Amino acid sequence: MTRRVRMGMVGGGPGAFIGAVHRMAARLDGKIDLVCGVFSSDPEKTRSMGKELGIPAERLYADYREMFERESQLSLGQRMDFVSIVTPNYLHYDIARLALASGFHVFCEKPVTTTAQEAVLLREETARSDRLFGVAFNYSAYPLVKHARHLVRSGKLGELRKVVVEYPQGWLAFPIEQEGQKQASWRTDPAKAGPAGCLGDIGTHAFHLAEYITGCSVTEVCADLTSHVQSRRVDDDVSVLLRFAGGARGILHASQVSIDEENGLSIRVYGTQGALEWHQEEPNTLILKWPDRPREIVRAGVNYSQRLCTEALAASRLPCGHPEGFIEAFANLYRAFADAILWREGELDNPPQLDFPTIEAGVRVMQCVEAVLVNAQASGGKWTRIT
Amino acid sequence: MTRRVRMGMVGGGPGAFIGAVHRMAARLDGKIDLVCGVFSSDPEKTRSMGKELGIPAERLYADYREMFERESQLSLGQRMDFVSIVTPNYLHYDIARLALASGFHVFCEKPVTTTAQEAVLLREETARSDRLFGVAFNYSAYPLVKHARHLVRSGKLGELRKVVVEYPQGWLAFPIEQEGQKQASWRTDPAKAGPAGCLGDIGTHAFHLAEYITGCSVTEVCADLTSHVQSRRVDDDVSVLLRFAGGARGILHASQVSIDEENGLSIRVYGTQGALEWHQEEPNTLILKWPDRPREIVRAGVNYSQRLCTEALAASRLPCGHPEGFIEAFANLYRAFADAILWREGELDNPPQLDFPTIEAGVRVMQCVEAVLVNAQASGGKWTRIT
Amino acid sequence: MTRRVRMGMVGGGPGAFIGAVHRMAARLDGKIDLVCGVFSSDPEKTRSMGKELGIPAERLYADYREMFERESQLSLGQRMDFVSIVTPNYLHYDIARLALASGFHVFCEKPVTTTAQEAVLLREETARSDRLFGVAFNYSAYPLVKHARHLVRSGKLGELRKVVVEYPQGWLAFPIEQEGQKQASWRTDPAKAGPAGCLGDIGTHAFHLAEYITGCSVTEVCADLTSHVQSRRVDDDVSVLLRFAGGARGILHASQVSIDEENGLSIRVYGTQGALEWHQEEPNTLILKWPDRPREIVRAGVNYSQRLCTEALAASRLPCGHPEGFIEAFANLYRAFADAILWREGELDNPPQLDFPTIEAGVRVMQCVEAVLVNAQASGGKWTRIT
Amino acid sequence: MTRRVRMGMVGGGPGAFIGAVHRMAARLDGKIDLVCGVFSSDPEKTRSMGKELGIPAERLYADYREMFERESQLSLGQRMDFVSIVTPNYLHYDIARLALASGFHVFCEKPVTTTAQEAVLLREETARSDRLFGVAFNYSAYPLVKHARHLVRSGKLGELRKVVVEYPQGWLAFPIEQEGQKQASWRTDPAKAGPAGCLGDIGTHAFHLAEYITGCSVTEVCADLTSHVQSRRVDDDVSVLLRFAGGARGILHASQVSIDEENGLSIRVYGTQGALEWHQEEPNTLILKWPDRPREIVRAGVNYSQRLCTEALAASRLPCGHPEGFIEAFANLYRAFADAILWREGELDNPPQLDFPTIEAGVRVMQCVEAVLVNAQASGGKWTRIT
Repeated sequence: MTRRVRMGMVGGGPGAFIGAVHRMAARLDGKIDLVCGVFSSDPEKTRSMGKELGIPAERLYADYREMFERESQLSLGQRMDFVSIVTPNYLHYDIARLALASGFHVFCEKPVTTTAQEAVLLREETARSDRLFGVAFNYSAYPLVKHARHLVRSGKLGELRKVVVEYPQGWLAFPIEQEGQKQASWRTDPAKAGPAGCLGDIGTHAFHLAEYITGCSVTEVCADLTSHVQSRRVDDDVSVLLRFAGGARGILHASQVSIDEENGLSIRVYGTQGALEWHQEEPNTLILKWPDRPREIVRAGVNYSQRLCTEALAASRLPCGHPEGFIEAFANLYRAFADAILWREGELDNPPQLDFPTIEAGVRVMQCVEAVLVNAQASGGKWTRIT
Repeated sequence: MTRRVRMGMVGGGPGAFIGAVHRMAARLDGKIDLVCGVFSSDPEKTRSMGKELGIPAERLYADYREMFERESQLSLGQRMDFVSIVTPNYLHYDIARLALASGFHVFCEKPVTTTAQEAVLLREETARSDRLFGVAFNYSAYPLVKHARHLVRSGKLGELRKVVVEYPQGWLAFPIEQEGQKQASWRTDPAKAGPAGCLGDIGTHAFHLAEYITGCSVTEVCADLTSHVQSRRVDDDVSVLLRFAGGARGILHASQVSIDEENGLSIRVYGTQGALEWHQEEPNTLILKWPDRPREIVRAGVNYSQRLCTEALAASRLPCGHPEGFIEAFANLYRAFADAILWREGELDNPPQLDFPTIEAGVRVMQCVEAVLVNAQASGGKWTRIT
Repeated sequence: MTRRVRMGMVGGGPGAFIGAVHRMAARLDGKIDLVCGVFSSDPEKTRSMGKELGIPAERLYADYREMFERESQLSLGQRMDFVSIVTPNYLHYDIARLALASGFHVFCEKPVTTTAQEAVLLREETARSDRLFGVAFNYSAYPLVKHARHLVRSGKLGELRKVVVEYPQGWLAFPIEQEGQKQASWRTDPAKAGPAGCLGDIGTHAFHLAEYITGCSVTEVCADLTSHVQSRRVDDDVSVLLRFAGGARGILHASQVSIDEENGLSIRVYGTQGALEWHQEEPNTLILKWPDRPREIVRAGVNYSQRLCTEALAASRLPCGHPEGFIEAFANLYRAFADAILWREGELDNPPQLDFPTIEAGVRVMQCVEAVLVNAQASGGKWTRIT
Repeated sequence: MTRRVRMGMVGGGPGAFIGAVHRMAARLDGKIDLVCGVFSSDPEKTRSMGKELGIPAERLYADYREMFERESQLSLGQRMDFVSIVTPNYLHYDIARLALASGFHVFCEKPVTTTAQEAVLLREETARSDRLFGVAFNYSAYPLVKHARHLVRSGKLGELRKVVVEYPQGWLAFPIEQEGQKQASWRTDPAKAGPAGCLGDIGTHAFHLAEYITGCSVTEVCADLTSHVQSRRVDDDVSVLLRFAGGARGILHASQVSIDEENGLSIRVYGTQGALEWHQEEPNTLILKWPDRPREIVRAGVNYSQRLCTEALAASRLPCGHPEGFIEAFANLYRAFADAILWREGELDNPPQLDFPTIEAGVRVMQCVEAVLVNAQASGGKWTRIT
C-alpha cells in the first residue's frame, strides 16, 4: 500500500476562499492527508478550524515558524512532507524560504512573491535545498489545456503567429474593499498583494497559461494599466501587447471591473497550420480550427482515448459528458505534486505524470509582471494622439 | 469536533466506473471515511483494491453478508454507519434488504431494484428498520436543478404545461458488449440490469429529474422502446409521451445509440408564466424564459446569493465562473446523507439540508419504468398508419 | 438577357406577416417582378398596397377570379407567369385550383390545403394542367439543410436509427386571438386554419423537414394533441412518436405555448455511422457527430467549397461568417421556382437547381397531419396509467 | 405612390464580392432601382454584367466620368439619384469627388479614401455640394447594434470603462494573393488598398463600431502591426491599445491570418452600471450584463417591441427567431440612404430614420487608421523587454 502524503497548511482560515479549495483538491484523490496547520494569525481561529478539519490539537501551531520547527522534530513517518501556502501574497516569500530551509517541500499559491527578485531568490533556495516547489497555476492543470499544449508542441498548429489571452472578471467593479469584504481588502492593498493588483491576481494566470500552452516566452510587453475604481490603490484593469520568442504577437487583457464577467479566462492560439481556443468556464471543450476542414470540438473525458494526449487522459477522472471542473483541475496539481514526492522517495512503481508548475514558472511570471509594471509607468512617447 | 461518518462499500472494484465516483464524492467534503468494503466477488480483487484505498485488511470482507455481520459486532464508534451499494442492479435488492435488517443505513445506486415490486418491499423494510435509504439520483443534486425546483415550487413559472426531458448517449451505438466491455456487458444483460436497458440505466434519471423539478407525478405514459443494435437483448432507445398530474404534457426520450452524444441529460419546463431550461453538460447555467422580458442566464456559485435559493447555495462550493461538475453534485448527495445520519444522532448543532432522494423516489421511478415496459409491449392499436 | 419572371400575388395585405416575406424573397435575386395582385378582400386595401408596391392600378384586382381571367387575356410577354398564394389556409385550395386551370403556375403557402383529400385533388389538377406547383416549405431551403440531406443520401450517417425534430414557439401562450391579434385570430380559427392548429401551422414544417433530410417517409404515428389555452379551438401543443420506413424511430414535438421560444425548429438525425444536428435559429451551422473523431462544425458560405455539396453552395450568396437568414432561404425557393419556369421555356442555357418542394410534398405533409389528428382522437387503450 | 430612388454603380463587375451584396441590399426593400453603371474598366464586362442585370445598353458607360456627364444630361425624373462606389479603395476618392461635383449623392464603400487628408477633402466637397454622402459601415446597421448604442446613450451602462472590439478573419492566412485570387490581390496591394492592409479592410469596421456604439471618440492609440505572411506588403494582423474620450480604455484587434475565423467582428462594452456584448456572426443576440441580476439575452425581431429601441425595431423586418443577417443589415443602410434622398425632396410624409454613417464617420475612421500607422512605425521606446 502506497503511503499517503502528509500536508501542512499556512493560511486558509475562516473567510478565506482559496484555502478551502486547496483542501478539497488535496482530498479528492485520497492521496494526501492534512496533518497540521496554521490557518490564521489568530490561534483561536486556527484551533477551531483545525478541530473542524479533524486535526489533533498538538499539530495546530501558533505560527509557521513554530510549525516548521516542531514538525521537523517529528519522526520521518509522522511529520508533514510539504506545506501548502495559501496566505496573502506578501507572506509567501518568508514562509516558503523558511519551509525550504527547514527541509519541507512547498506548494505555494500564485504569485509566488511580490517581486521578481524574491522569486529568483526562492528559485535559488529551492535548488540549494533540493526540495520540490509547486505553484498553484491551477488553470494549466485542466485536461484540455494539457491537450492544447500537446497540439502546439507536436506541431499541429505549425508556427505560432498570434495569441489572444484574456481574463475578465467583474467582482471588483465596485469599491467593496471599503466595505470590509475580506478577499477584496487584501487583494487591493499594495502592502499585502504587492504592487500589481488585477495584474498580480489574475494577469499572472493569463501569462502562465499563454506560455504553458505555446511553449514560447513573452519577450516584450507594451501595456496600459488602469484603476477604474476611484480610491483603489492598485490596477484593476490590464491591457498588454505581447511579443513572443519565435515571432508570434499577442494580446493579454485582464480586468476585475468587467461587470458580470465571472472567471472568464480564455485563450486563442493561431499558427500557420491551425488554431485552438479554450475557455475556462467551459473547460471540457477545446475548439480546433483548420484551414481546410471543419472546426472540431474536442471533449475531455477518459473514454476519449483515441483523441486526447496521455497527459490529458491522466488528468481526467470521468467519461465524456460528466463535467469535471475547477476542483478537479486543482486536484491534478496536488496529485502530481504528491506523486513527485513519492517518486523521489522510491515509493511508486511506475513513473507518474510530474506535470505541475514549479518555481521556474513562478519566476517567469513575476518577470512578466514587473516588465508590465515598468512599461505602464513609462508611457511617455508610447501613445499617438488622434487629431 | 463533529465525527466523520463511516462508510462501507459493496461493489466498485477494478474496472467499475461508478464506484470510484462514489468514493471521490464521499471524500470531497471531508465528512466521510471509507472504512470497510467488498469491492468484488473475487476476494483477491477486494484485497488489492482495499489496500490501494488504505483500508485495513481485517475490514475487507469476502461478501456482503460477512461484512454486515462482522461490522455489526464492532463497537458503535467503530463500525460503519452506512453501506454504499454500487453493484450491478440485480444485486441491489438483496444487499439493501440485508443491510437494513442489520441496522445499517443504505445509500444505493439507481435503479434501486429491477422491479417495482422489489422497490416497494424495500420501502417497507426501510420503514420497518427506521434506517435512512438514499438513492443516487445524482443529477438532482446540481445546485441549479435545486434552483429550478425552487422556481417551480414558488410559482414563478405559473401552472405547468409542458415538460421535455431527454437523455441521449452514444456509447452503446455499437455492440461493444460482445467485445467484453465490462460496463456494456452487464448493462445490456437482462439478468444483471433487469428488463429495462437504456430505460433502466438513464431513463430512470430522466424520470426522476422531471418529477423532482416539477413536483408533479407522471400519471400516464405511452411509449416506444427499441433495440437498434441487433442481438442486443434490452432496449437501447426510448421515446415516451407523458401526462402529468395537474395537466402538463411531456416527452421523455433517452438513447444509448445516439452517436457522439455524451451524457446529454437536459430538461425544459414550460408554464403559464415562464419557462426554464437546464443541461447537465453545462450544469452551471440555468436559462429562464419569460413572456415579457429578456431571457435570463442564471449561474451557479456561492457569490450569486441575491439570486439563488438557499438549497442551491448550500449545494455550491465555489464562486461563479469556477465550474463545479459531476463529482461535486454527487458529493452533495453524500454530504446530505452524512448530515442526515449525524442529525439523527444529535451530532449537529444546526439542522442541515436534508435534500437527497430516498427510497420513495426509488419506488416512483421503478413504477414509471414498469409502466413504460408494459405500454411498449402492448402496442396494438396505438399507432396510426400513414397511407 | 434572361427575362424576369412575372409574379402575381393573392393575399399579403396590410397586417399580414408572410406576404411581405414572400415579396422580399422574390425581390432579392432580381429575377422576379411582382406585376399584379389581390392583396386583400377589401379593394381599397389592395389599391393602397399595390400603389406602395408600384404596381399599375389596372393590374390590381378585386378578387382572384378576376385576376386569373384578366391576366389570361394579356399577351404572353406581359401576363403573370405564376401566382403566389399567401392567404389563410382555407382559401389555398380554391385559388390554387383555379390558377392551375387558368394556366398559371402556383407557388403556395403551407399547408397547401386543410385536408389531405384536397391536397390529392390539387396534385391531380397539377398533373392535368402541366403547371408547376411549389410549396413554401422554406426551412428546407437553407443551405445547410440541403447539405444535411446530401450527407444522409450519400450514406455518411449509415442507416438511420433516430430522428428528433422539434418546433417550439411561444407566441400563443396567451389567448391573444381574443384581443384581435390578426395572425393569432385566423390561425386558431378552425374555419380558416383547418382542423390542425399548431400541428398545421408549424408541425407541417417539422414533418417536411424530417422527411426532406432523411429521405424516409413517416409510416406510423402515435400522438398527443393539447389545447393548453382554455377556449382555444385548435391544438396548441403537439407530441408525436414516429416510425419511419427503413426502421428509424423518431419524435416530433411542436408547441405554440412554450414561452419565450421564438422559432425553434431543430432536427437531430442519428444513424449507424454518424449523426447531424441543425437549428433554424442558427442556420449557418451544421453539427456533425462521429463515433471515432471529434464533433465537426460545418458552416454555410460560398467559400466553403471543399466542404459543402453543390446544392448547398448554390443556395448560398455570401462567404462564411456573413450570416444569411430566413429571407435568403425563402429567396432560394423563389429563385428555384423562377428558374424552373424559365428552364421549361428554354430560356436558360444551363439546367438550374430545381430543388423546391412541390405539390407532392404538400400531399405527404397533409397525410401526416391527418394521421396525427386521427390518432390523437382515438386515444383509447393507448396509455398506461402509473399506479 | 412614392417614387423609387435611382442608383448608378461604379465597380462590382464579375469576380467582385461586395458589388453583388450592394445590389441585393439595394433591391431587398423595393425602394431602389439600379439604372446605370460602370461595372468594370473593361467595357465588355460592363456590358455583359449590365445585360444580366437588365440595364438598358445606353446606360452602361465606359468609365465613371462618362457616366456622371451623361447622366447629368438626363431629365430629373430619369437620371440616377446617387452613385454606389464599390471599387478598390484607391479609386474611391476621385470617383466620389467627381460625383459630388456633378451633383450626385454618393454611397461609398469603406474606407472612403486611402489617406485621412483625402477624407477631409471629401468632407469639404460634400459640404460644398450639399449632397448626401453615405459610407458602408454596414455592421453598425444591425438592429441590435443600434439597440446597443441606445443602451449606452441612455445611460443604462453608466460611465464607460472598457471596450474590447475584435475582428478576426483567416482567409489571408496563406499568400493567396500570389495565386491570383482577385479579392486578395488588390486588398494586399498598397497601390490599390492604401498603406493599411488588414487595418484598412476590417480594422476600419472595428473602429467605427466602437465609436458608433459608445458615442466616444478614440483619442489615443498604441499599436503593433504585423505582416505574418512573408512577402505580403501590408499588415495582416493588428493589435491596438485604445484610450477613449471620457476615460474608457480599450483594445482593438483584427487579423486576416487567424485560421478558420470567418468574419468574427465582436464588441464588448463595460460601464460602471452594466455591460453589453455583441457578435456579428450571431447578430440577432445581444448579451446584457448587470451587477445585481442575471445576464439577459436580448433578441432582434419586430415583435420584441417592449424591449427594443425605436431604431432597432425600424431596422428589423421579421419576428424574433426568424434570423436576419448580413444582407438585411446592409439593406438598412440603403433604405436609410434612399429615404434621406426622398425626404430632402419632400417625397415622404413622415420623417424617416436617417441613421446611416456619413462622410464624417469616414473621416474619423481614416484619422484612426493614420494614427495607428504612425504609432506602429515609431515603436522606439514603446516596448519593455523581459529579461
